[in-house]
Amino acid sequence: MSEILVVGSLAYDSIETPAGKVDRALGGSANYFSLAASLFAKVRVVGVVGEDYAEKDFALLKSRNVDTSGMTVQAGKTFHWAGSYKDDMNEAITKLTELNVFEKFDPHLPEHYRDSKFVFLANISPDLQVKVLEQVKAPMFVGMDTMNFWISSKLNDLKKVLQKVDIVLINEGEAMMLTGAANGIAAAPKVCAMGPQAVVIKRGEYGFMMYSKEAGYFILPAFPLDKVIDPTGAGDTFAGGFFGHLASLGRAPKITDLKMACLKGTILASFTIQDFSVGALAKTGLKDLDQRLEKYMQVIFHG
Amino acid sequence: MSEILVVGSLAYDSIETPAGKVDRALGGSANYFSLAASLFAKVRVVGVVGEDYAEKDFALLKSRNVDTSGMTVQAGKTFHWAGSYKDDMNEAITKLTELNVFEKFDPHLPEHYRDSKFVFLANISPDLQVKVLEQVKAPMFVGMDTMNFWISSKLNDLKKVLQKVDIVLINEGEAMMLTGAANGIAAAPKVCAMGPQAVVIKRGEYGFMMYSKEAGYFILPAFPLDKVIDPTGAGDTFAGGFFGHLASLGRAPKITDLKMACLKGTILASFTIQDFSVGALAKTGLKDLDQRLEKYMQVIFHG
Repeated sequence: MSEILVVGSLAYDSIETPAGKVDRALGGSANYFSLAASLFAKVRVVGVVGEDYAEKDFALLKSRNVDTSGMTVQAGKTFHWAGSYKDDMNEAITKLTELNVFEKFDPHLPEHYRDSKFVFLANISPDLQVKVLEQVKAPMFVGMDTMNFWISSKLNDLKKVLQKVDIVLINEGEAMMLTGAANGIAAAPKVCAMGPQAVVIKRGEYGFMMYSKEAGYFILPAFPLDKVIDPTGAGDTFAGGFFGHLASLGRAPKITDLKMACLKGTILASFTIQDFSVGALAKTGLKDLDQRLEKYMQVIFHG
Repeated sequence: MSEILVVGSLAYDSIETPAGKVDRALGGSANYFSLAASLFAKVRVVGVVGEDYAEKDFALLKSRNVDTSGMTVQAGKTFHWAGSYKDDMNEAITKLTELNVFEKFDPHLPEHYRDSKFVFLANISPDLQVKVLEQVKAPMFVGMDTMNFWISSKLNDLKKVLQKVDIVLINEGEAMMLTGAANGIAAAPKVCAMGPQAVVIKRGEYGFMMYSKEAGYFILPAFPLDKVIDPTGAGDTFAGGFFGHLASLGRAPKITDLKMACLKGTILASFTIQDFSVGALAKTGLKDLDQRLEKYMQVIFHG
């Protein structure tokens, strides 16, 4: 088993969906990622929070044996995002983004983080993604996420990060925006042409598509749920399950490893969206994952 | 092997997509269905055309050994649909619907059609669907399609047809409209609660979902294509491949038969959308289907 380093946001989210709403609930890509990945492997977090960050929210990660020594507390408030989802649960509508302490985030890795073999650069500014990666000595497998904001505002920096990673995990709309392709299928090889060996394109309720230079397309649906409470964090949970599985194997990933990692990611994401915030994910164990994975295999024609 | 009876439209379509346009090209649900199904089994068509219907368009079906003796030629013009697709190739925008001879269509089955074991009621008025079905002596397996227009204008008639069929093949948005469900997953069992044993929900570029009372969900993606020329007819081609496979087996379908029928339907539909009108479908043979099916099995984690 290898350690996973993740850099990303630690946040409080105010979210409204057709199923209800929550105010300043725990969120942020690094939290969803860590809760998912820590089911499989040791996770090390890099991030920044404000003085308002609750002790119980540190405690939640520590209860999963997550290393939080790379989380710094700075004067000011924690990153806050407010958004909503209408009937189309595939698309978040941002109401408010308060960067707060995140605005001057300058990531420095604790010395013992620098030997991490698996690295995930969640959705933060591309120059910070590079800055984190430069501090890791000899990573074996590096992944990244990004979003429309960075594609439109920092494309050159983003292209530099793309050349340094092994895999990109990205939403379908953002993959199309990044490449100018008319659909996700056309976008996938164009993303790989920008650097990475493989790309996972997340399709919300329609599941995911992986494309690799070595093996082409691998496409499957999401686990079927008749009710979605809150889709926030689904993508970061996917990434956490994906990297967790790979780190648990502890070797340079083969294509079959990447495929199984996609399955575990998509199943874990299906738990996240069944409650607001990390409510469902925090209660999900490996046994739940295995049971749902077995049901999923029937859905996708295995069984 | 059993015969398949299909009733549906025979049309000329004027279509514009980002890839180009065609004027008064061959279309209609019964044409797409018949070209697909006739790869596997004997097809019998019920429908109406106008005096402008070209001899070569009759000849195309006859070249596939399709029985066209239930196609009547009436004074007036053939059904004409004009529509377009924008960047979102999943949704057609109707510009014009000229029913023409279709307006007074009153289906009468030739005597030798009445022993058909497999029946597909393509998207026509629900009272005509019933009228056709009542003329078949002892069908073994009956399927139907419908659309938003009938859901909003003839819901009570539609509900009666739903109680008489074994399977419904329908678009995801229409399944949601029919049931009031917030997503396709929730809609599927609600469609079955209206009568049929199973429903296939078509998801455009995202593939399909089958739900059966016996075996629950079966969900898979579409065959990946980086370029779609014209999505018109994809759903009817799916239905044709689906029924063709079942009729070639000639028995009351088991769940595993229905699953394989979905795969053949989705692969055939992927050919249809690679050209305007029936251009690609008419050239597709069983060998092409098998080759693409093999590639598809890799995409969906078998291989």
